[in-house]
Amino acid sequence: MTAERELIAGIRAHAPHFRGSVHKGIGDDCAVLQPRTGHELVVTTDMLLEGRHFRREWISPESVGHRCMARGLSDIAAMGAEPVAFFLSIAVPAKLATAGKSKKGGKSAPEPSWMDRFMDGLLRLATEHRVPLAGGDTAQSPEGVMADIMVLGELPKGDALLRSGAKAGEIIYVTGALGGAAAELTALEHNARRRTEARRLIKAPEDAAHPHLFPQPRIEAGMVLRRQWLATSLIDISDGLSTDLDHLCEESGVRAELDAEAVPVHPLAEEAEKRGWAKSAWQLALNGGEDYELLFTAKPETKVPEKIDGIPVRPIGRMLPASPRKPRLTLCRANGRTEPLEAAGWEHFRKA
Amino acid sequence: MTAERELIAGIRAHAPHFRGSVHKGIGDDCAVLQPRTGHELVVTTDMLLEGRHFRREWISPESVGHRCMARGLSDIAAMGAEPVAFFLSIAVPAKLATAGKSKKGGKSAPEPSWMDRFMDGLLRLATEHRVPLAGGDTAQSPEGVMADIMVLGELPKGDALLRSGAKAGEIIYVTGALGGAAAELTALEHNARRRTEARRLIKAPEDAAHPHLFPQPRIEAGMVLRRQWLATSLIDISDGLSTDLDHLCEESGVRAELDAEAVPVHPLAEEAEKRGWAKSAWQLALNGGEDYELLFTAKPETKVPEKIDGIPVRPIGRMLPASPRKPRLTLCRANGRTEPLEAAGWEHFRKA
Repeated sequence: MTAERELIAGIRAHAPHFRGSVHKGIGDDCAVLQPRTGHELVVTTDMLLEGRHFRREWISPESVGHRCMARGLSDIAAMGAEPVAFFLSIAVPAKLATAGKSKKGGKSAPEPSWMDRFMDGLLRLATEHRVPLAGGDTAQSPEGVMADIMVLGELPKGDALLRSGAKAGEIIYVTGALGGAAAELTALEHNARRRTEARRLIKAPEDAAHPHLFPQPRIEAGMVLRRQWLATSLIDISDGLSTDLDHLCEESGVRAELDAEAVPVHPLAEEAEKRGWAKSAWQLALNGGEDYELLFTAKPETKVPEKIDGIPVRPIGRMLPASPRKPRLTLCRANGRTEPLEAAGWEHFRKA
Repeated sequence: MTAERELIAGIRAHAPHFRGSVHKGIGDDCAVLQPRTGHELVVTTDMLLEGRHFRREWISPESVGHRCMARGLSDIAAMGAEPVAFFLSIAVPAKLATAGKSKKGGKSAPEPSWMDRFMDGLLRLATEHRVPLAGGDTAQSPEGVMADIMVLGELPKGDALLRSGAKAGEIIYVTGALGGAAAELTALEHNARRRTEARRLIKAPEDAAHPHLFPQPRIEAGMVLRRQWLATSLIDISDGLSTDLDHLCEESGVRAELDAEAVPVHPLAEEAEKRGWAKSAWQLALNGGEDYELLFTAKPETKVPEKIDGIPVRPIGRMLPASPRKPRLTLCRANGRTEPLEAAGWEHFRKA
């Protein structure tokens, strides 16, 4: 058997098969699938590039695989949908797809390749959320790892929680705490010992203390928001609170006022500030990307629980009518004064 | 507006909206779509990498965009499906996403970026096949272009033409002529004047004389094969006739015998041999990849037309019962002698 087909056969053997929606998976020109009766599909694609989204020498292959899957799943969570299948396109240099050899006790034993370990991390999270691998593409890259994940989700027709559903007068909520992923990345940049630890970490510890290395997509929370009709609009925080709130306002045609004191700051962000790795924990919470928490709006009369699926949910501000004379985002300080807030999160093509 | 959002807004403005299946396109975390009643979806992903699948200095950005779209559409054709939406993930170096300036007649005029021109080529082919862009992802790459296209197609439930449907006794057919794409690539490698011409070529000439630069996905032919119940199995020739026939045999559990004289050789392959750019036109037809013609099987009693959608269709061999003592592929020479045939087409991770 040729090497590419071996690679695909390996992926195929390891991929779990769970849901009825996928009629035909890997092995043909296309996968064949169909949503359940009365349901529609949601589709997302997300890239993960070496040198842009991760540094291969800093983190374990399992963490890269986990993060690739988490990015895709988080977009599904952001619609309130249930993931049903995913596709992976991945290009890696030849040496990363080749099994190594380790010498233990004088004996030569085969060692999993970078690619094997990447798939382990990715499939562990996929299995946790019961999402089967339905297809994809593999190629040899001249240099660097490039992964593109596509995830399909399913929900009852017309029930998708969109970015465009927020109205003036509604309350803005966020799940979990913010700035943790950016803080952990900053810690890796500043601290060699943390990088050594990160390279060894091959799965998420149970307390989810590694929001950059092993972010947790809020699939269950998104489905609760949709099923219980709690949210009017929903987005995941991938680019940073300020930027994703700006997206929500833009698509909904409203403006937002954030309560500065209400924004939940991740303990790792506090630590990064204390150790001098970041200027301000608050800035990390406001503009740090890749937290993958959910940002949503609810009507003032909706009783939003304090926890959903075990994750704290906090009100952090309100939507107001859009106005040509007012900035789209404002920040309300503890003393009651408001100031304009810039959308200063992650941006792929920053202006020079 | 920030630069990434400008890029996305530009793509959004240029993307055609055609089909009813897509309820919500670009602008949310996911696209929302639903197949027509009684239909199912087919899904494919395909990567196109600079340095691996194309050389940026040899061909026009429009040709790269066209080829990216053609790869995805060809997989949809290979199921007999109708394309309904596509998603594009693309990473490019910052300078390729920036508009240039040209000086014409002393005046400085804005010039479209590489990315703009890539999208022009891609959307031209998408529009021709009435497929809307429904979403995707953009990123800045450290180096080189990486595009991943995902296409969704639709067909009546259970009607997908699979690789696994071929049976012993059936006839093997192929559309068009083979080896043209590999021959044109060889011509570019050997001839600087052809490269200069290729860089200038921004759309497919009507006679489709450029199978490498502007391959034509056989969407309509695939749908005819499915609607008229002509084919029992179907695959597109992306890796080369020998390798894709091997895939078909593997999934169907049969072996194949090709008639050497029956394989249609593209005129460009003949030319490449004549000029000494390739050793053998026949080898290009047998093992050259990226022709994107359709390879299918039909029952002996099925009357397969000589042309489908204007494209010649030729019988090139037959399927035989699999046998552990016989090679999966054999070649039948004009003198009646048969010999084993190696699957020697494109393989991403070749063994050293």
